[in-house]
Amino acid sequence: MDQELKNLLDEQNLDLLYEYISRFQPYDLAEMFIQFEHEDQLKWISMLPIPLGAEILEYVEPELQYRILDRINTDTASSLLNEMSSDKVVDLLLAIHPHQAEKLMKFLPPDYREKISTLMTFSPDSAGSLATVEYIAARNSWTVDQALQHVRKVGHEAEIVSYIYVLDTHGKLAGIVSLKDIILAKPDTQLEEIMKEDVVTVPAEMDQQEVAYILSNYDLYAIPVVTSDNRMIGIITVDDLIDVIHEEATEDFQKLGGSQPLEEPYFKNSIWGLFRKRIGWLLILFVAEAYTGNVLRHFEDTLSEVVTLAFFIPLLIGTGGNSGTQTVTTLVRALAMGEVKFKDIFKVMRKEVSTGVFLGLCMGIVALIRAEFLGVGFDVGTVVAVTAIFIVVWASLVAAVLPLILHKLKIDPAVVSGPFIATLVDGTGLIIYFTMAKLMLNL
Amino acid sequence: MDQELKNLLDEQNLDLLYEYISRFQPYDLAEMFIQFEHEDQLKWISMLPIPLGAEILEYVEPELQYRILDRINTDTASSLLNEMSSDKVVDLLLAIHPHQAEKLMKFLPPDYREKISTLMTFSPDSAGSLATVEYIAARNSWTVDQALQHVRKVGHEAEIVSYIYVLDTHGKLAGIVSLKDIILAKPDTQLEEIMKEDVVTVPAEMDQQEVAYILSNYDLYAIPVVTSDNRMIGIITVDDLIDVIHEEATEDFQKLGGSQPLEEPYFKNSIWGLFRKRIGWLLILFVAEAYTGNVLRHFEDTLSEVVTLAFFIPLLIGTGGNSGTQTVTTLVRALAMGEVKFKDIFKVMRKEVSTGVFLGLCMGIVALIRAEFLGVGFDVGTVVAVTAIFIVVWASLVAAVLPLILHKLKIDPAVVSGPFIATLVDGTGLIIYFTMAKLMLNL
Repeated sequence: MDQELKNLLDEQNLDLLYEYISRFQPYDLAEMFIQFEHEDQLKWISMLPIPLGAEILEYVEPELQYRILDRINTDTASSLLNEMSSDKVVDLLLAIHPHQAEKLMKFLPPDYREKISTLMTFSPDSAGSLATVEYIAARNSWTVDQALQHVRKVGHEAEIVSYIYVLDTHGKLAGIVSLKDIILAKPDTQLEEIMKEDVVTVPAEMDQQEVAYILSNYDLYAIPVVTSDNRMIGIITVDDLIDVIHEEATEDFQKLGGSQPLEEPYFKNSIWGLFRKRIGWLLILFVAEAYTGNVLRHFEDTLSEVVTLAFFIPLLIGTGGNSGTQTVTTLVRALAMGEVKFKDIFKVMRKEVSTGVFLGLCMGIVALIRAEFLGVGFDVGTVVAVTAIFIVVWASLVAAVLPLILHKLKIDPAVVSGPFIATLVDGTGLIIYFTMAKLMLNL
Repeated sequence: MDQELKNLLDEQNLDLLYEYISRFQPYDLAEMFIQFEHEDQLKWISMLPIPLGAEILEYVEPELQYRILDRINTDTASSLLNEMSSDKVVDLLLAIHPHQAEKLMKFLPPDYREKISTLMTFSPDSAGSLATVEYIAARNSWTVDQALQHVRKVGHEAEIVSYIYVLDTHGKLAGIVSLKDIILAKPDTQLEEIMKEDVVTVPAEMDQQEVAYILSNYDLYAIPVVTSDNRMIGIITVDDLIDVIHEEATEDFQKLGGSQPLEEPYFKNSIWGLFRKRIGWLLILFVAEAYTGNVLRHFEDTLSEVVTLAFFIPLLIGTGGNSGTQTVTTLVRALAMGEVKFKDIFKVMRKEVSTGVFLGLCMGIVALIRAEFLGVGFDVGTVVAVTAIFIVVWASLVAAVLPLILHKLKIDPAVVSGPFIATLVDGTGLIIYFTMAKLMLNL
């Protein structure tokens, strides 16, 4: 812990402390805060102005949030909790034990408690779970001047005030007005006249990944979450969706690497946790790979006759795996980004097979040279070269088609990982290899 | 093309057309627009209100932007170009031929042209290249009322008006004020009194990935880009950074798949383009993999004596590759997200090796069972099982350490792709396998 800060804390010199912390952003203060001894954390959070304290708390993990709110005096704890944005409060309450959550709920006024309870009912990866209720709503019949007065009254608590959500007389979302439009309009204009009626909204059940997709396509800063009859549940702000975008990309990475996605940052996973996420696919792939043994036993006679054929097994199946992995990662990502769709399957096949033919020809030539250097004779060399061509084309084709089919079947295409394709191509590649050998070497 | 829209276009019925399009978001209109015949695109864009036309244009590719601006009447083209946000204008001018860019530049007033020229000098992946000059600046001595009048005057053109950037008398960035703060403050308050002085800024040369990292950590909606003496070049808005986040994740995906990153969406790449991005790594990996041939030739006697050992080659090296790929993808992503740093290397090694030991033990047992089923005898089975354990641990270790070392050496850790690790583990795995065989079978 920073010595200067430590001294300021010990001296309880508020003026100097405030001056010191005013040099940092809340995020930076949170980073320092995490490093503190727990006793210092308690002391410090109690000395800070409530809005800043709440913002810092929002950056730390729910467990630490709870340990702090539970141990500081209840007035401060209550103020901090009420100041935190509602999506963060929901995250906290869902992460801790229900008994502990109940305890914290008592800090909230009844109507807010009810809103929080509603938000807590949405499933963890849905739009509803990301929504915050700190938005500004206004009535369509209000004038610009009334709206401004309202902003002055409630604006302090809102998470985002660039937009004001306009509700009709039934409380349904009728349109949005930007703060800019309000400032540019005459004071007696009715909101109805200047509001934008076609609002992009999402239902509470929508998957968070889809929400992120919509938000980034439409270049929005916030998106309202609504019920089926267009009543507002809350808004999702872009900063929360950036976290979703990161999360989803991380998940796809891990899946493509042949592991189940980790739900927590790397170091939060125990050895046992990592083990569990990895063993499943390792075993499945092992069993799938095991049939390469059968293929080889099937060709045992060929292999015994020309042991040199074995020299090229890792090289050929490795090349197939590499080529397949290149194609599959490109396509899985293209699917995730919406660049490729199932209807493009023939276009994709044509592209990948054509590319595969050229890549295969190159690899075939290099394989021939390599065989020459290993001194295995021109015959075996030719077999290896021709096999290389076929394996690359075959791997490209399989890797191009499988993700698209899975996507069509509503299965996450990222399960077709690099290791998966490599395994698939290993056995089939060996069949190609030994069939070629038998045909070309007359075995 | 939508028949209703087509009719409205042909009838030149502006009222009905406006009513029809008011039901859609600009992004949706852009999606339709792209599908039009070129003649219809020209007709349509000329009929739209300029601000909407400009927004739609911003969503389409630079080549199409140019083909449209070049063919419609110059007044409309000039208005559209001036209405587009400056970062998009820069993207357009950099994407087309310099002669064409010069032609378009003539549509811009001299002072704006100068700003655009400055923005064009920044390298494509830098903060400067993403900056837009459509922000609102105010003087620190202005009152809230003056600031509001200024917003009313220039706010129409600004890309984001949630924040006003406050400059001191030397024109340097002194602080920011949110529109909310302005509305909440008394009209005669000076901006100086309410502005937040510690602004998170980025230099124009900063890499866009780092900017995205800062913006998502600090939960900002926009970030000012400044010169070394704190003069504002422009602002970067969060929507542009979401594109960067997607781009960078896509690049990492493709690198991890053992391909050079594609710079364009999938279908924009020709077969030749895909070929070039893939052939490099395929060849490097092929050459690296080729030494497995030497390893096998070195152990040719052992292999001839016990041909059944060959049955397990693909299985064992495949398992090593799978296990290594799991670890490497997890760590490359954790490095990219800042969850793991070089100083954690021993912690990571301990974690991965421990996990590897447990995974290896499991795989060893399964390998023993598999060997039993293939009927190769208990001796060979034991060799396979012990090798499986060592290979998994070895692959985990290599895959854990390499990305961290590369990161430390300032080389992008994503070059350690799945195929790279698999290749590395193939040869070394074979050495482990045959050494075990020689030792345990007394060959």
